[in-house]
Amino acid sequence: MTTQNTHLRSIDLRSDTVTRPSPAMREAMAGADVGDDVLDGDPTLAKLQARVADLLGVEAALWTPTGCMANTIALMHHLTRGDRFLAPVGAHVIEAELGTSAWLAGGLPTPLAHDAGPGRPSPGAVLAAAGTQGPYFGLRTSLLCLENTHNGAGGAVTPVDEHAALVAAARDAGLAVHLDGARIWHAATALEVPVSALTAGVDTVSVCLSKGLGAPMGSVVAGSAAFVDAAWRLRKMLGGGIRQGGVVGAAGLVALDQAGDLAGDHARAARLASGLQELGWPVIAPDTNIVLVPTSSPAPLVASLLDVGVRAVPFGPGVRFVTHRDVDDTMIATVLDRAAAVPAPA
Amino acid sequence: MTTQNTHLRSIDLRSDTVTRPSPAMREAMAGADVGDDVLDGDPTLAKLQARVADLLGVEAALWTPTGCMANTIALMHHLTRGDRFLAPVGAHVIEAELGTSAWLAGGLPTPLAHDAGPGRPSPGAVLAAAGTQGPYFGLRTSLLCLENTHNGAGGAVTPVDEHAALVAAARDAGLAVHLDGARIWHAATALEVPVSALTAGVDTVSVCLSKGLGAPMGSVVAGSAAFVDAAWRLRKMLGGGIRQGGVVGAAGLVALDQAGDLAGDHARAARLASGLQELGWPVIAPDTNIVLVPTSSPAPLVASLLDVGVRAVPFGPGVRFVTHRDVDDTMIATVLDRAAAVPAPA
Amino acid sequence: MTTQNTHLRSIDLRSDTVTRPSPAMREAMAGADVGDDVLDGDPTLAKLQARVADLLGVEAALWTPTGCMANTIALMHHLTRGDRFLAPVGAHVIEAELGTSAWLAGGLPTPLAHDAGPGRPSPGAVLAAAGTQGPYFGLRTSLLCLENTHNGAGGAVTPVDEHAALVAAARDAGLAVHLDGARIWHAATALEVPVSALTAGVDTVSVCLSKGLGAPMGSVVAGSAAFVDAAWRLRKMLGGGIRQGGVVGAAGLVALDQAGDLAGDHARAARLASGLQELGWPVIAPDTNIVLVPTSSPAPLVASLLDVGVRAVPFGPGVRFVTHRDVDDTMIATVLDRAAAVPAPA
Amino acid sequence: MTTQNTHLRSIDLRSDTVTRPSPAMREAMAGADVGDDVLDGDPTLAKLQARVADLLGVEAALWTPTGCMANTIALMHHLTRGDRFLAPVGAHVIEAELGTSAWLAGGLPTPLAHDAGPGRPSPGAVLAAAGTQGPYFGLRTSLLCLENTHNGAGGAVTPVDEHAALVAAARDAGLAVHLDGARIWHAATALEVPVSALTAGVDTVSVCLSKGLGAPMGSVVAGSAAFVDAAWRLRKMLGGGIRQGGVVGAAGLVALDQAGDLAGDHARAARLASGLQELGWPVIAPDTNIVLVPTSSPAPLVASLLDVGVRAVPFGPGVRFVTHRDVDDTMIATVLDRAAAVPAPA
Repeated sequence: MTTQNTHLRSIDLRSDTVTRPSPAMREAMAGADVGDDVLDGDPTLAKLQARVADLLGVEAALWTPTGCMANTIALMHHLTRGDRFLAPVGAHVIEAELGTSAWLAGGLPTPLAHDAGPGRPSPGAVLAAAGTQGPYFGLRTSLLCLENTHNGAGGAVTPVDEHAALVAAARDAGLAVHLDGARIWHAATALEVPVSALTAGVDTVSVCLSKGLGAPMGSVVAGSAAFVDAAWRLRKMLGGGIRQGGVVGAAGLVALDQAGDLAGDHARAARLASGLQELGWPVIAPDTNIVLVPTSSPAPLVASLLDVGVRAVPFGPGVRFVTHRDVDDTMIATVLDRAAAVPAPA
Repeated sequence: MTTQNTHLRSIDLRSDTVTRPSPAMREAMAGADVGDDVLDGDPTLAKLQARVADLLGVEAALWTPTGCMANTIALMHHLTRGDRFLAPVGAHVIEAELGTSAWLAGGLPTPLAHDAGPGRPSPGAVLAAAGTQGPYFGLRTSLLCLENTHNGAGGAVTPVDEHAALVAAARDAGLAVHLDGARIWHAATALEVPVSALTAGVDTVSVCLSKGLGAPMGSVVAGSAAFVDAAWRLRKMLGGGIRQGGVVGAAGLVALDQAGDLAGDHARAARLASGLQELGWPVIAPDTNIVLVPTSSPAPLVASLLDVGVRAVPFGPGVRFVTHRDVDDTMIATVLDRAAAVPAPA
Repeated sequence: MTTQNTHLRSIDLRSDTVTRPSPAMREAMAGADVGDDVLDGDPTLAKLQARVADLLGVEAALWTPTGCMANTIALMHHLTRGDRFLAPVGAHVIEAELGTSAWLAGGLPTPLAHDAGPGRPSPGAVLAAAGTQGPYFGLRTSLLCLENTHNGAGGAVTPVDEHAALVAAARDAGLAVHLDGARIWHAATALEVPVSALTAGVDTVSVCLSKGLGAPMGSVVAGSAAFVDAAWRLRKMLGGGIRQGGVVGAAGLVALDQAGDLAGDHARAARLASGLQELGWPVIAPDTNIVLVPTSSPAPLVASLLDVGVRAVPFGPGVRFVTHRDVDDTMIATVLDRAAAVPAPA
Repeated sequence: MTTQNTHLRSIDLRSDTVTRPSPAMREAMAGADVGDDVLDGDPTLAKLQARVADLLGVEAALWTPTGCMANTIALMHHLTRGDRFLAPVGAHVIEAELGTSAWLAGGLPTPLAHDAGPGRPSPGAVLAAAGTQGPYFGLRTSLLCLENTHNGAGGAVTPVDEHAALVAAARDAGLAVHLDGARIWHAATALEVPVSALTAGVDTVSVCLSKGLGAPMGSVVAGSAAFVDAAWRLRKMLGGGIRQGGVVGAAGLVALDQAGDLAGDHARAARLASGLQELGWPVIAPDTNIVLVPTSSPAPLVASLLDVGVRAVPFGPGVRFVTHRDVDDTMIATVLDRAAAVPAPA
């Protein structure tokens, strides 16, 4: 057995962003009705945007090339120089956008501990951190960012009632609310509620079409019609005003129609977690499709896994595995077989 | 005849961005080999980027969702707070990116008159504007931006020797050079030279796949390998780090392979210009695929044209018509027939 | 006679910023009542600010260390990313702040020709440049900046009625108005009107205490009470929130009380201009205290003047002389004597 | 006894920024030799800057109106978009500049726990936080900011050997080092070492003339000659390029010459702390001139103190008292007498 062979046959659990577009998506892309979205609006993007706004229970929505741009647009809209925003420790908007929340939108993040459960702060912590300030001194806390599911916390779900209580606390403190819902689909699936139950009360929300849903690219940022008007200009400034976007928008519509088997992805993550645990590995029990293995030496573990044909990523003080539409039950079984050849991490 | 009927059959000369992807592009998109471009590099984008770098005669290249982002990345790379850059009056980088050159990259534009010919300044004007400054006072001129063809000047071509002289002047003045080559393909076609003859000596260059070449979306920014490394991070910050970009990259490769009949587009623009002139219209004789009709009242003229089934856009103090791959000889004849029903503009 | 001797006895007409504080100012500084302006408000600054607000006919005012910061605060208040502002060609806010209007405040300047007279555009030009834009495309024109007197145009005065007409045009076009009134004192003196006649209708105005008035440092930015509240925070962000500012504020109050002989400064500028003209020099007849000598070779002229003990500065395509409180009639006569030894510029 | 009477006689321990300039400072200001610092350099500022550079053991120094601007200039110099900097929890550069480190300089702060002692992290924590990153992903850690004494930690001193070890760790991690030395004078006094022992190895350092030293305004930022050249431009951009700055520079020189009795201030802080402790108050034993009283309800305690004629400020979860040149032994005794009338905080 050569390394190359192993590599070719490796099973990729690094992220749900690695999925390839399905045949239906490819067919839809090839046949998409398109227009110049900057000049007239692309009909397929328009359809996609209306569809997502409806799912999220908000007035309007706007396609963006990436989730990073979707979040940045929302933060640019909400924040100004001298503002502070609150977000759970490890939230994507704090660091994953390379600090654009700060230098582009002008808001300094204050990370909140996950004191209410994995991935979410308590309403009390929001109120305490928002604090009170005189007119002059210090940063002005103006925004609460939530993330559901919370990637850094292992795909942790914030339940509907806690979501509502956090939004209420933000309102009491005079804060706007943005929800990074890149994997809101998984949260809704896990909770068996409509997506709109998890966006209730927010000002803006971003969702991703290219993670669990499997589209090749694209996210959507949504909120009021006035927000989307403003977002249109911000997207243009950031370089996201594309032309015949319907070709990728069509894949996004298919991704919504045939969202794949998210519940199955969750079951496979649970199977993976229990299997690893049986091998004596430390594992955080997953809420959704992300399995975290805490370890102080992620890099060697990732390398050992790659040697046996399993791809995972270092992730904070641990290693992350993500199940997705290109991974089936058999592949999870194979992953567990291969992991058995790797010494259990410390 | 109803307005709606007319509208349905209207011939769209507003921009070469309105082209629909060809069947070959759609087929390529459906069959594209893809990967996660953020994690591993997408193989189709990698192929496209290598191909464009080779065409442009530079070390490396990076795909971006839009030309706006391509230019912004280059300007962010070249400029810092307190810098000034020079660009011909009406250059896309001055206003079309909504001022991002200034607030994002930190450089204040100084427009240069087209004293050497349509769309380009003279080398002497570059030297004079670059000036000399003490260490402390005033903006520091650090960059020359060229645009070939120059959209605002009606698709005007800068010849090879003038390009070389402008680059040499910039070097003498200690300036970096960025070329906005969104329509460099048209300039090369008009001059019957390889594209690389028109990028000689520049530090960075952006080219567009979705204008004359007809891809549904996408541009490329290119330069040294070190620049592209830096550009990678800047693209991520701006929200342009997409995933399975190969689906649109594949259309870009087809656009390069089957660039359409640019020489024919130029001939059709010339035919349109002479036809309008025969109707008594003021027309600027086109170098490439853009025809400008100067008029002090663009909006009524655009409305009258729309009434007869011809779409054009207000463009500074005039109206712009652009020929492109979705417009053939017959359609140009139809446009001229229809224009005959519109009073010649003042 | 050695160069060094000449240099010691040179008469400094480079700028009215070179004035030394008067004995009365020095005494006031030594005896100033002070407090911590960040914590409580400094009583002397408070008195100065109330005094200036009253003079300018606005609600409130805020001391700043420099005129540069005063203007930047106003522009940060008025502008946001994607905005454009209009200002007469050569206005201080375009370049003298090293582009901060653009990268800090987010507004791209559009210089307006002085079509109504030196230093000011016509109301029609303001309306035309403000234009009309759809919601999405292009920069949004949001602010008109005026400068009275206009330094770059040789201390040119905008009369009261033209000021009013420009403000009215800005209102018609939906623009806010900021007045850079660094030398508003000279304009009011030349026109023999109260300063408030020249601030009528503006949203914000900055004035300088350290130019013609002779204070060692300090400017004031003024407008509505709500603006000054916002300006307080912006000043803190920029690093202008000083402590016992009363020590310099006291000099500012003396500068207002004993503004010196501005009318005399103007008369001396006129005498200088006519004297140079008698020597065959090209001279722009001054409105106030600034005399411009147009020449294509400013640097050699400045050097020749320095050799004979007269200090002036290169200023665009010319040389600038400024009269101020440290220059009396005798010194102007000496300057003319010395200038007679310098060949008249071409 | 009326509230107003009490208020008039209150003893102000809110900050060492409240000090009034001494008679010697006022005299120096009145007699200062001045020039136009933007045009020629002000001779008194030049003398002050050379003096401070010498004290700090660095090549060059630049006066700034505030410590906020001094720090912002250093951070703008060191950081670029996408950077991260490390600083001890509660460092002034994280929040006190209203986030300018982030939106102006482009660097996102990562607060480090005070694991080595009050106010400072351990070298190991610096190395761990600096981490290692691939070329593309994530923020790039580029700077370590230290603060000595550390205000938020109660004027805590970092000893010479720990300072040296932190600088060495930063070097090993490829980080630049900026020292916020607003109260470096107190650290040097407490440690009985020259100030330069506490700046060893840093790239840039800011010091304050208006806190313990008692000047009415002004700070200095210092480093290499190349840094000061760059800082000159940045200061101009931020609006800190003042004119006859010598009037305040003269007070700064007196502040250095007659720095007051810092050792006495420390002794008085210790006396205050032990006196409060005798009254049953929780107190953090002071290293220098800052006494912190931890309490979960700072506002009521501050109000009660004000009622008896003692001024202090809420400070995180506690109340801060600062001794300074305008507070003598008798006043400390009076403060303790008055505090005896206030119930001990919980």
